[in-house]
Amino acid sequence: MATTTSQVAEICAAARKAARVLGSIDTYTKNAALLAISRALRECVPEILEANELDLAAGAQADIGDALLDRLRLDESRIADIAHAVEAIAALPDPVGEVIDGHRLPNGLDIRKVRVPLGVVAVVYEARPNVTIDAAALCLKSGNAIVLRGSSTAAHSNAVLASLAGQAVIDAGLPPGCVGLIAGNGREELAELARQEGVVDLLIPRGGEGLKAALEEVATVPVMYAASGICHVSVDASADFGMAKAIVMNAKTQRPGVCNAAETLLVHSGIAPAFLPGMLRELAAVGVELRVDERARSLAGELDASLIDAAAQDWETEYLSMRIAVAVVDSVGEAIDHIERYGSGHSEAIVTGDTAAARAFQRGVDAACVYVNASTRFTDGGEFGMGAEIGNSTQKLHARGPIGLRELCTFKYLVEGAGHVRA
Amino acid sequence: MATTTSQVAEICAAARKAARVLGSIDTYTKNAALLAISRALRECVPEILEANELDLAAGAQADIGDALLDRLRLDESRIADIAHAVEAIAALPDPVGEVIDGHRLPNGLDIRKVRVPLGVVAVVYEARPNVTIDAAALCLKSGNAIVLRGSSTAAHSNAVLASLAGQAVIDAGLPPGCVGLIAGNGREELAELARQEGVVDLLIPRGGEGLKAALEEVATVPVMYAASGICHVSVDASADFGMAKAIVMNAKTQRPGVCNAAETLLVHSGIAPAFLPGMLRELAAVGVELRVDERARSLAGELDASLIDAAAQDWETEYLSMRIAVAVVDSVGEAIDHIERYGSGHSEAIVTGDTAAARAFQRGVDAACVYVNASTRFTDGGEFGMGAEIGNSTQKLHARGPIGLRELCTFKYLVEGAGHVRA
Repeated sequence: MATTTSQVAEICAAARKAARVLGSIDTYTKNAALLAISRALRECVPEILEANELDLAAGAQADIGDALLDRLRLDESRIADIAHAVEAIAALPDPVGEVIDGHRLPNGLDIRKVRVPLGVVAVVYEARPNVTIDAAALCLKSGNAIVLRGSSTAAHSNAVLASLAGQAVIDAGLPPGCVGLIAGNGREELAELARQEGVVDLLIPRGGEGLKAALEEVATVPVMYAASGICHVSVDASADFGMAKAIVMNAKTQRPGVCNAAETLLVHSGIAPAFLPGMLRELAAVGVELRVDERARSLAGELDASLIDAAAQDWETEYLSMRIAVAVVDSVGEAIDHIERYGSGHSEAIVTGDTAAARAFQRGVDAACVYVNASTRFTDGGEFGMGAEIGNSTQKLHARGPIGLRELCTFKYLVEGAGHVRA
Repeated sequence: MATTTSQVAEICAAARKAARVLGSIDTYTKNAALLAISRALRECVPEILEANELDLAAGAQADIGDALLDRLRLDESRIADIAHAVEAIAALPDPVGEVIDGHRLPNGLDIRKVRVPLGVVAVVYEARPNVTIDAAALCLKSGNAIVLRGSSTAAHSNAVLASLAGQAVIDAGLPPGCVGLIAGNGREELAELARQEGVVDLLIPRGGEGLKAALEEVATVPVMYAASGICHVSVDASADFGMAKAIVMNAKTQRPGVCNAAETLLVHSGIAPAFLPGMLRELAAVGVELRVDERARSLAGELDASLIDAAAQDWETEYLSMRIAVAVVDSVGEAIDHIERYGSGHSEAIVTGDTAAARAFQRGVDAACVYVNASTRFTDGGEFGMGAEIGNSTQKLHARGPIGLRELCTFKYLVEGAGHVRA
């Protein structure tokens, strides 16, 4: 049942062929195809759950752990959520054909910079079967063919989901081959996919450092890596205490397992004595483990015994858990330096009442998203009004921050003349 | 005198440090620094020519050939041209700080997508010493530090140019380290440069396939390759003959050695009998070698004996010379298919009087620049009104087409709230 390397090449070639048609298909047809996917999902719940049961049983037998089993599990309500997400993507504006820029050159040539699909997007992902549908919907809406390569853990679920989606969109008028699925998770097949130069236009890995390392070694196609999120909340001397506490609690505890959650709290020494004891108490009260530098410990008062001394690696660790590193800094500049040194360029926040501090932080911090008086947790395609995202980029080239429909596109220059030649 | 690998790392680290300062430097100061470069060039002509003489003598001794010697040669007028180009870049709008997009989210958060420098840009180039100054001016204007690595052929010229520029901009208030030069062309030093992950944000090679292959093997930093230009002019059934001839002649012969020159002529079979004999005569008359398919030969009449049969590889060769491949096609769709198969995604033109054909060509051709009734030779940052370019990208990610000041930037999202937390 697993795809062979030669089949990988065939699936990609079929996607390439489909992409040439997809790029010119009108928005109505693409939206109808997306709605056909959501209808198919809603109509085939028993079939999907049956496949999912096979994965769950295999997972339980392989002892993959409760967390992974939960991510793998589908039920009627989760399937409805997936279908709803597809409908939301169908409702978004079509990025293809948008005129990004344009002007008339002095010689009379008219030039327009127009958004067009990338072509073929490959998505490599782990565990969660909903990615199969989310990614397909985002790629198709942006005029791209998609090649999916999920994990073997979710093989049955992914197969049925990709097959339902693929059939539904073909019935709705999209070209065959526009949704390809590579079954199995062999390294050779991954390498084959990552070497489809001129066929696959972009590969997006959604997985951990192991997947990233594997791809860095073999990939010749462009890859957009979503790096980890080592995000900071910096509480400035002029911060409103209530606001600062609410933002720190939200950034750290509202959903600690995601990349836009905060990992480090930086507190200005000017307010640390007044602010830090209460802040640390509040964090400890909800079960957040505190890893503090010397100055923070000296101000912690009654909590002193329960604190852990931060080691060097604490500043560069993405905890993804109820744990926070805490340091005291003497200025906004020092906070920026700390972030420059340890941050991953994802999301960084300052809480401040001072316009100069806000401006210095926004200018000085080199990250995809820089917040003033708001939680880092807002970094998300949905929250940003992009409708949905296929991941979050900490690269500086092409896409930075949420990767939505526009980021799945490139552009071309259309130039129109009346026989213009260059002198 | 050659830079060692450990010095490469030091030069890059210094550039990184400079980049943090450069990103916030105002436009006035950057422009003054650029004007200081052009002043230094004009004032130090004898010094530059003396260094250039050493390179020319070494080149002549090493028998590098007249073409290369000519590209290497500087004289007073060429130095004035370089200085003038820097002044032109100084006069361009500053891309840094431009608000690309922005809106207020339903929850009241204000979000702005703002253009910011990439950070450190490395440029690897061959022969022509003017690139030293052009690239430095473009990078500094866009707020980036630059690390230059020229060829050993131009070592003396590059050293004096980089040193003049580096000193001039520091005197004008830019941070030390913002113009770095790697001397010598050792493979190990190139590899060290290409592996400065987290230090070098973008590497731009300006050279041939050998350089590209060398970089693909070792690079871990992002690289923007400028691929070859296999450009087509497609003459449609409805084309005006005079316009078609003028565009073909311009695209092929106005400057055949550059990437936006045409390499292949496609002619619709509906007009080929009437159009092709005259067109081929005109090309032959100015010395263009004609490599034709069977149908084109059958229509060539008196020229028949001087034609060469096109071999398979002719369709995929970037001649960069007075030679053109010629094929007859039966439709716009067939022309698009030919371009899809053999084109390099650079610049493609159709000559047509038919709106449907123009639209089909613009939609169907997947290239950086798609022309209707104009020569492919216009693909150029200067011609496009971007002021200048550091190269031309045939990639689809980040930059496609001319790489100007904006393309040397990334962006960040600035988000401002009043204590916003995510629910």
